[in-house]
Amino acid sequence: MTGTRTAPHPRTDGAEDLTADPLRFGVGARVTVAVMADDYADVILSVLAGVDRSGLVVATGDVSTYVGGHEADLLRYLTDLVDAVAATGEHAAVTLHLSRGCPGEVRCELPGGAGPRPADLPPGRRTGRVAVAEWALYPLVDDVRAGVVPDHMRDIEAAIELARVAGTFRGSEHFVTRLEGDVGAVVETVVGAWARVGRGVQHVTSHVTLSLNSPSRTRG
Amino acid sequence: MTGTRTAPHPRTDGAEDLTADPLRFGVGARVTVAVMADDYADVILSVLAGVDRSGLVVATGDVSTYVGGHEADLLRYLTDLVDAVAATGEHAAVTLHLSRGCPGEVRCELPGGAGPRPADLPPGRRTGRVAVAEWALYPLVDDVRAGVVPDHMRDIEAAIELARVAGTFRGSEHFVTRLEGDVGAVVETVVGAWARVGRGVQHVTSHVTLSLNSPSRTRG
Repeated sequence: MTGTRTAPHPRTDGAEDLTADPLRFGVGARVTVAVMADDYADVILSVLAGVDRSGLVVATGDVSTYVGGHEADLLRYLTDLVDAVAATGEHAAVTLHLSRGCPGEVRCELPGGAGPRPADLPPGRRTGRVAVAEWALYPLVDDVRAGVVPDHMRDIEAAIELARVAGTFRGSEHFVTRLEGDVGAVVETVVGAWARVGRGVQHVTSHVTLSLNSPSRTRG
Repeated sequence: MTGTRTAPHPRTDGAEDLTADPLRFGVGARVTVAVMADDYADVILSVLAGVDRSGLVVATGDVSTYVGGHEADLLRYLTDLVDAVAATGEHAAVTLHLSRGCPGEVRCELPGGAGPRPADLPPGRRTGRVAVAEWALYPLVDDVRAGVVPDHMRDIEAAIELARVAGTFRGSEHFVTRLEGDVGAVVETVVGAWARVGRGVQHVTSHVTLSLNSPSRTRG
């Protein structure tokens, strides 16, 4: 697994590289799984218990589950998790909130000048199950003195082009881009675009709401 | 109701004011209601049908419901909607995605220089029911040539101070601020901070996931 990762380039100027450690750089996600069935608690606990957490820090709360670690591990975990929810056959909404470049809480604990973190991802797997999703992506400015000001619309358009290439792009609606396709392709689009924009911008977040096993879809 | 609103100041330089019409300015929300019960469809439809939509454009899709209009109407609608879900007694997750200053879809249809839109809100009502929530707020840069670069962390800290004053602030976690309190106070904190930051920044979004009637809370 580690062979598929691109390690950050070592700095040659003697300064500490604040981008190398994914946890220190704040690479992670918050996930809310809402299963629309009376036995939701058993379904959610069973799904969470069955997904491989290798390489990740996982902490479950009463609103969401925090998952932190390398982008490649996050891609694997989120694909497996969303697919496991889809495999239950229950109608469910899954909310993913990805973040990078701003560890800590109220105030980023990294200086604005830490710089972006390069991360190449392996291709996501295909699961054979379908998701529809609404997706937003945000390159953020934390410290304009760092001199790197993201161009929000340029990055959004590049991300949408990635979704078109992945075959998941279905259109644009108020405030969001609509994605549809194999669970693995949808999660790969979201995680991939977030990591790609993160090559040029330190602090990038993304929010996506996925709908699984929607009765309005299967009933036509 | 209209008496509680602050109309944008008329421009005296002859230029068209692009901030005056909330729909044209892109003031709105996307809402996903996930009710964790077998009869979720009936519960959600009943809740959506019972909430006053006055003054708003509402369009329900298979992932979320879009609601567009004046900030004061949004505050009323979202308070009533979340409270109606809480009143069912069912465990539910409600995801709110607020946006302002970027109408259209892939590309903002407003030029970056439209400027911020002032909006004062009436106080939200208190409902007597409780929500816990995880909250993120994003002032965005769409066009750095407009010369207004938001200071993300300054605005976030001002928003958290609003939450402290409202009594809903409960702490900071990875990537989010935790809010807790009366449903009306939590929704007022989120909508109020988003509108407040919008006095100085054109494009502002906010994402919040609310948990209602959580068994881990009532059993705990």
